Amino acid sequence: MRAAIFRNGNIVADTIPDPVPAAGQVLVKTLACGICGSDLHIRKHAGRMADIVKHFPSRKPMDITRDVVLGHEFCCEVIDYGPSTQKRFKPGTRVCSIPVLLGANGPQGIGISNDATGGYAERMVLSEPLMIEVPNGLASDHAALTEPLAVGIHAVAKANIRGDEVPLVIGCGPVGLAVIAALKMKGLHPIVASDYSPARRDLAAKMGADIVVDPAKTQPFTAWAQHAEMTPEQKAARPPFQAFLPPLKPALIFECVGVPGLLQQVFEGAPRDARVVVVGVCMENDRSEPLLGILKELSVQFVYAYTPDEYAYALRLIAEGEVDAAAMVTATVGLDGVAQAFTDLANPERHTKIIIDPSR
Amino acid sequence: MRAAIFRNGNIVADTIPDPVPAAGQVLVKTLACGICGSDLHIRKHAGRMADIVKHFPSRKPMDITRDVVLGHEFCCEVIDYGPSTQKRFKPGTRVCSIPVLLGANGPQGIGISNDATGGYAERMVLSEPLMIEVPNGLASDHAALTEPLAVGIHAVAKANIRGDEVPLVIGCGPVGLAVIAALKMKGLHPIVASDYSPARRDLAAKMGADIVVDPAKTQPFTAWAQHAEMTPEQKAARPPFQAFLPPLKPALIFECVGVPGLLQQVFEGAPRDARVVVVGVCMENDRSEPLLGILKELSVQFVYAYTPDEYAYALRLIAEGEVDAAAMVTATVGLDGVAQAFTDLANPERHTKIIIDPSR
Repeated sequence: MRAAIFRNGNIVADTIPDPVPAAGQVLVKTLACGICGSDLHIRKHAGRMADIVKHFPSRKPMDITRDVVLGHEFCCEVIDYGPSTQKRFKPGTRVCSIPVLLGANGPQGIGISNDATGGYAERMVLSEPLMIEVPNGLASDHAALTEPLAVGIHAVAKANIRGDEVPLVIGCGPVGLAVIAALKMKGLHPIVASDYSPARRDLAAKMGADIVVDPAKTQPFTAWAQHAEMTPEQKAARPPFQAFLPPLKPALIFECVGVPGLLQQVFEGAPRDARVVVVGVCMENDRSEPLLGILKELSVQFVYAYTPDEYAYALRLIAEGEVDAAAMVTATVGLDGVAQAFTDLANPERHTKIIIDPSR
Repeated sequence: MRAAIFRNGNIVADTIPDPVPAAGQVLVKTLACGICGSDLHIRKHAGRMADIVKHFPSRKPMDITRDVVLGHEFCCEVIDYGPSTQKRFKPGTRVCSIPVLLGANGPQGIGISNDATGGYAERMVLSEPLMIEVPNGLASDHAALTEPLAVGIHAVAKANIRGDEVPLVIGCGPVGLAVIAALKMKGLHPIVASDYSPARRDLAAKMGADIVVDPAKTQPFTAWAQHAEMTPEQKAARPPFQAFLPPLKPALIFECVGVPGLLQQVFEGAPRDARVVVVGVCMENDRSEPLLGILKELSVQFVYAYTPDEYAYALRLIAEGEVDAAAMVTATVGLDGVAQAFTDLANPERHTKIIIDPSR
C-alpha cells in the first residue's frame, strides 16, 4: 500500500506492506486523517521524545532509524477482520477510534510508534473494541476531527470547572480552538482567547470565543482582567485578608501553544491563584521561575489525550452540529502532498488543519 | 536596639534605631525568632528575588543596598501601643502574628522588606488586628514554630485531599516536617517521607511519617509504590481503559526541598496522574521537561504562606501538644550568633531549626 512515511527525519511517499490484523484487530481503509501539530513536533524532536519515553516502562520508544507512519486523527472504513473478533460492523462501515492498538504486548499508540501504522497510509489496523461508528451523513474529513476536539474536551474536563472562572485560551491553533469549543459547551463565559494570527482569531470567534485579542497589540492578561471583574457580591464575600488583592474572578488559563518559554510568560502574566492547564505539547526542555508560581500560588495541570468516553462525546458533538469543527479545515491533500503540507502548516494565516485523503 | 542585620550580603550584629509603631501598630519585644530556610535563600538570592517581585505591582522589592532585618517566625511580648489601637492585650502579654504589617501604604512582609523589621532584633512592630495571644504555659521558642507549622498546614490544605491518596514528602527539613505533621492531623496514611540525613529521617518518623526512606539507598518513588497498592475493590472499580496501568493509589507528592532540578526529578519519578505540591521555595530559575508532565498528566500546585486561620490553628496544635514542633529545635543563639547559625544550618545532621533569643 502507499503511505507518507516518517523516514530519516523526512516525510516521504512510498510503498510499504499492508498491515495484517492480529487477534481482536480489524483491517480498515483510511478515508481521512488530520495532520496534528504533534506530528510536526515529532518530526523535529523524535530523538528527544524517545529520551523522555525511557521514563515510561510501559511505552516503547519510537525507533527513528526505522520507518514510522504517523497519523492519529483518522476516519476509516472497515475492510476485513482478524482472528478472535466479533465482527461488530459490516465491511464498508465508517468508523473512528482512539489511536490505540491493543495487542499481545500491551497497548501501542497508533501513528506514534513503529509497530502501529498511522493514518498517513491507505490502510491501517484498529482494535475492534475501541471502534465507534461514524453517524450517517457526517463527512469523513469532519469525523477525522473527532480526535483534536476530544483533546479540548479532555483539557476542559481536567480543569474541574466550578463555574465562577473566566477562561483565557492562549493560542488558537487546532488545540486552542478545540478548547474554546469545549468551553462553549460548558457555558462558561466570557471566553477570552489570544493569537497573533488574524485568521486564527476569526476562527476562535467562530468556535465560541467572546473576546479575541491580538497579543501584539493587547497583553492577553490585561484583556482578561478587563473581563474578569468580580461582581459586588463576590467582592463582599472575600475574606478580610484578601481585601488588598485585585477584585478579579478566578483565572483559568489554557496554554495551547507548546513552545519553550510560553509557560514562563504565563507565570509572569497570570494573576494570583490562577489555574493553568497545559494542553500545548512542548517537546523541548523548558525554563521557568518557580518563585513566580510560588508567590502567586499558581496551579499547573498538564493534560494529555482523552478517555474513550470523551472521544465518543467529541464525535457526537461534531455529528450533531454542536461544534463546527469543519471550520478549521483549510486544505485536503493526497499522500504525495503530506511533505509539503508539513511545510505549509508553518504559516498560521494559510492553514489550521490539513486533512490527508489517501485516495487522492 | 540590637539586631542581626542583612547588610551587603552578610549577616552582621549591630545597633539600629528602635521601630516606632504607626496607627494600628504595636511595639513588641522579640522573645524568640526562628531562622527559616527562606532567610538563607534570601541572603544568597536577594537580587534575583527583587527581579521576580517586579512582576507584583503590590509588592515593593527588597532594596539590598539598604539594611534589612530578617525574621518572620516570631513570638513576642507586648510593650506599647501606637495611635488608633484598641489595646486588646495588656503589656507583657505574649503574642504571635502572621508576618504582615498593615500600614498606610498597604501590607508589608515583616522580615522580608526594608520597612518592616523582622524578628532578628530586640524589638519589632506588629499589626494589632493580626496579633493572637500565646496560651499560658507554651514556651516562647515553641510558639515561634507556629509559622513554619502553618506553612505545612496550608500546603496540605491546598492539596485538597480526597482521602484515597498516599502522600510522599520529599525533604524533611522544617517545611517537610511541618507537612508531615499536617498530614498526620488529616489522618492520611501511610505517610512516606525521604531525606538523605539520618537525623532528619528520625525527626520525620517522630512527626508522623510511617515509612521513611534514604534516597541514597532506595528510590523514594519505588518505596512509595510499595506502599500505594490499590485495594482489590479499587482495582475492580477502574475503568477498562486504565486496566493496563499499574494498580496504584493516587500519588500526592510534596516537594519540600526547593532547589533547581528537584521538580524535574519529581517529574521523572512520579507515577501517572500524580499531584505535586511545591512547598520548597526554589529561588533560582529551573528547568524541566514539560513532555514528562504531559504524558503523565501531572498537576503541580505551588503554595505560599497560609491564611490567618491556618496560622491560628498551627498555634493551637502546638499549644495543645498535638504537634511536637519543639522536636525540630536544635539550638538557640543570641543576635551575635546568627551569622554562625546561617553557616551551621548548612549541615542537616547538626541542625534543623535554630531559634534566636535576642535577650541572650
